[in-house]
Amino acid sequence: MLILVTNDDGIYAPGLAALYQELRDLGKVAVVAPESEQSAVGHAISLSTPLRVKKAPLVGGGFGWAVSGTPADCVKIALAELLPAAPDLVVSGINLGPNVGINVLYSGTVSAATEAAILGVKQAVAVSLNAYKDADFATAARVAGRLITRMLEQPRSEPLCLNVNLPNLPESAIKGVRLTRQDTGRLVERFDCRVDPRERVYYWLAGINDRQGLDPDTDYAALEAGYISITPLHHDLTHYPSLEGLRGLEK
Amino acid sequence: MLILVTNDDGIYAPGLAALYQELRDLGKVAVVAPESEQSAVGHAISLSTPLRVKKAPLVGGGFGWAVSGTPADCVKIALAELLPAAPDLVVSGINLGPNVGINVLYSGTVSAATEAAILGVKQAVAVSLNAYKDADFATAARVAGRLITRMLEQPRSEPLCLNVNLPNLPESAIKGVRLTRQDTGRLVERFDCRVDPRERVYYWLAGINDRQGLDPDTDYAALEAGYISITPLHHDLTHYPSLEGLRGLEK
Repeated sequence: MLILVTNDDGIYAPGLAALYQELRDLGKVAVVAPESEQSAVGHAISLSTPLRVKKAPLVGGGFGWAVSGTPADCVKIALAELLPAAPDLVVSGINLGPNVGINVLYSGTVSAATEAAILGVKQAVAVSLNAYKDADFATAARVAGRLITRMLEQPRSEPLCLNVNLPNLPESAIKGVRLTRQDTGRLVERFDCRVDPRERVYYWLAGINDRQGLDPDTDYAALEAGYISITPLHHDLTHYPSLEGLRGLEK
Repeated sequence: MLILVTNDDGIYAPGLAALYQELRDLGKVAVVAPESEQSAVGHAISLSTPLRVKKAPLVGGGFGWAVSGTPADCVKIALAELLPAAPDLVVSGINLGPNVGINVLYSGTVSAATEAAILGVKQAVAVSLNAYKDADFATAARVAGRLITRMLEQPRSEPLCLNVNLPNLPESAIKGVRLTRQDTGRLVERFDCRVDPRERVYYWLAGINDRQGLDPDTDYAALEAGYISITPLHHDLTHYPSLEGLRGLEK
């Protein structure tokens, strides 16, 4: 089995190293990841600029490919140019920080997995950890590895893309696994307005993780409650329920 | 009525200027747009870097705000900091080039409209023109203005986000308006592998607009056939049909 590992925190991120170590038990692992951090780039791709590719040594031996682009770029160029064959599995992560709710749209980690599914990879998984510091990636990789093994047991005719979010807890403290839907509620956001050393104003987005009144079947709620959240994702943004009500616009 | 206009081609793009001129007949228009081109940035937002905001003169008089970020950044900071009140309508465009099919996921133009809907704006519209050169933005803006006027006639309780794609044709040659779904098929892509003046290899994504065997009810097909395509969009990426089949992963 050929496995592609990528991420959005960059090829030298500890979350990727942990995933690489873990997945080597499952098959041949190729790493193609951004050369620098690409958090919150969403599904950005590079059209106006070319991509550079460099060999990069990996923790645990071997090397990967560091790409001067986004996570979606990495998946595209891996499949088109760098891998010897189409991968059976693409895993993106492990991201430092959760990707639940509206943040799924902003997430480079998730977009890499979505891109893999678009390109026909049968099994694509984004893995994120609910921690911004003191992240236990070793535990997260072990738990993710077991989940992925169970996912692979089921053969697929159509690509499946899963968004997996893990609590940053010892295994014994994780309450279980919940299949969830993406929370769609608005985040509480604000901008810090600051003044630079040359007395010019700048703004910084702040406070984006504070959802209240969550439905219990959402990714956000499951993760907050100490469960592993798994959400199957698609890439059809059509809002079908609106179509009929808009027929008056046709002519 | 307060209208926010933004785009991903940058605040000095002719597509934005045409839209600005047209929408001034409908209400007070505020322009908050990227200071430079941001095509294919998808739903990227700026977390690691702060945003700068500058006044920028607009074609046709007045000024807008040029933001050192992405289209989604522009919508966020417009609503949080720059506008005197919440806008009744957000229009993103007019994009040079279509945003149909899988390209919807990569589109900064569309993501600005999606972001507006996420933030609770009742009417959000992305407008793109099916041309990479010889774009007739004056006609496109007039046609878009009339569509938006008709859209506004229907009061809404929930935010509605529309992805509008216009043929680059004289009005008399446009065949009509079609409500469509987003085509989800894979694009035919390849990378150009080139060598730079210092004999180093680089890659450039090429050939991404060549879909075959299109279903006629898709955005792609309608636009190719000379119709205006309107697709209602949402931001719930959950693939609900997969949920039941995955219950085995819960424990």
